Amino acid sequence: MRPEVHWGVYLVTDRGLAGRRDIAEVVDAAAEGGVSLVQLREKTCDTRAQIRLAAALCERLRPRGVPLVVNDRVDVALASGAAGVHLGQADMPWDTARRLMGPDALIGVSVETPEQAAALEGCDIDYLGVSPIFATPTKTDAGAPWGLDGLRALRHATRHRLVAIGGISASNAAEVIRAGADAVAVVSAICAASDPRRAAEALRRAVEGG
Amino acid sequence: MRPEVHWGVYLVTDRGLAGRRDIAEVVDAAAEGGVSLVQLREKTCDTRAQIRLAAALCERLRPRGVPLVVNDRVDVALASGAAGVHLGQADMPWDTARRLMGPDALIGVSVETPEQAAALEGCDIDYLGVSPIFATPTKTDAGAPWGLDGLRALRHATRHRLVAIGGISASNAAEVIRAGADAVAVVSAICAASDPRRAAEALRRAVEGG
Repeated sequence: MRPEVHWGVYLVTDRGLAGRRDIAEVVDAAAEGGVSLVQLREKTCDTRAQIRLAAALCERLRPRGVPLVVNDRVDVALASGAAGVHLGQADMPWDTARRLMGPDALIGVSVETPEQAAALEGCDIDYLGVSPIFATPTKTDAGAPWGLDGLRALRHATRHRLVAIGGISASNAAEVIRAGADAVAVVSAICAASDPRRAAEALRRAVEGG
Repeated sequence: MRPEVHWGVYLVTDRGLAGRRDIAEVVDAAAEGGVSLVQLREKTCDTRAQIRLAAALCERLRPRGVPLVVNDRVDVALASGAAGVHLGQADMPWDTARRLMGPDALIGVSVETPEQAAALEGCDIDYLGVSPIFATPTKTDAGAPWGLDGLRALRHATRHRLVAIGGISASNAAEVIRAGADAVAVVSAICAASDPRRAAEALRRAVEGG
């Protein structure tokens, strides 16, 4: 059975932003604070280290009922027992990932334009990562922002769950939810926070107020 | 059934060395010249492009009976229908790869020391990539060379097939085979050659004379 997702707050990891802190501790604290889904995004470390980290995160998140998805790497997801993958437009096509991971895997796909979203309508995926909502310094290769109006339009155009990412913090999370997002994704708002648990709590409250 | 491998000459791709030529053309010419196994090694391009390239190579190599293995990326291998993977010591552990890829996959593992080789004895893998045999400018992160004496000692210590890599060309391939290698792996000797087919033929002849 595909894992149940509570949406709300979606954490994307960034070891660089976590500084000298153990990223597993940061993620654990964030889950305690109310994060409902975690994406492991690792672009630099080798495959074996990614598998180890993903497995360690799964172990911590499983008792909390928080699924882990792995960015890009279906091999790392399969090896570590993660719940699924998050795929960019230049990653593995979603249907290949579905074939390799089976019907129970969570699969999310990033969309940067309405055309990319339309191409995924009716596909067996679990959410669209709508990127970026606002301009952000984290992903310098991102396209033009969707904005709240673009998000609202997408909400009407698709039946998929929407995870909004890019420039979101506790101060604007509520309006992003009101514009139609099922979850707000954050990187720095939690990974760079001095207290990741409290940062997650603040986001959770903002989302529930949205 | 696990694909039959004829060993002899093992080509490791390097798009940088192929320059402006299509790497698929280089590989195809090399297979025509007598390469018996090809490893796709891509460290820079995105996952979707790697899958496309691997699938294109499989299509060209299949009629020639030359298996393709993918360096590091089990996901790319599974998605493209490649015969297997080549794993470094920092890549996925071989037993995880075997579990994900099944009994028919070809799995090779790089070893840089006798201890690493000993740890793989009795394991269900298809070959050891013995690296580097000689000092080489291609892999700057490699350990101390095995040398021909080290290769001979390993030949006596293991029952695995041995693919020797590092600093090998048509001029020294025969002695590497005589020292116990089942195949010589080359990167620049073919990828940087002006005529990859003739370069592969020269290596093939050298190996058969070894």
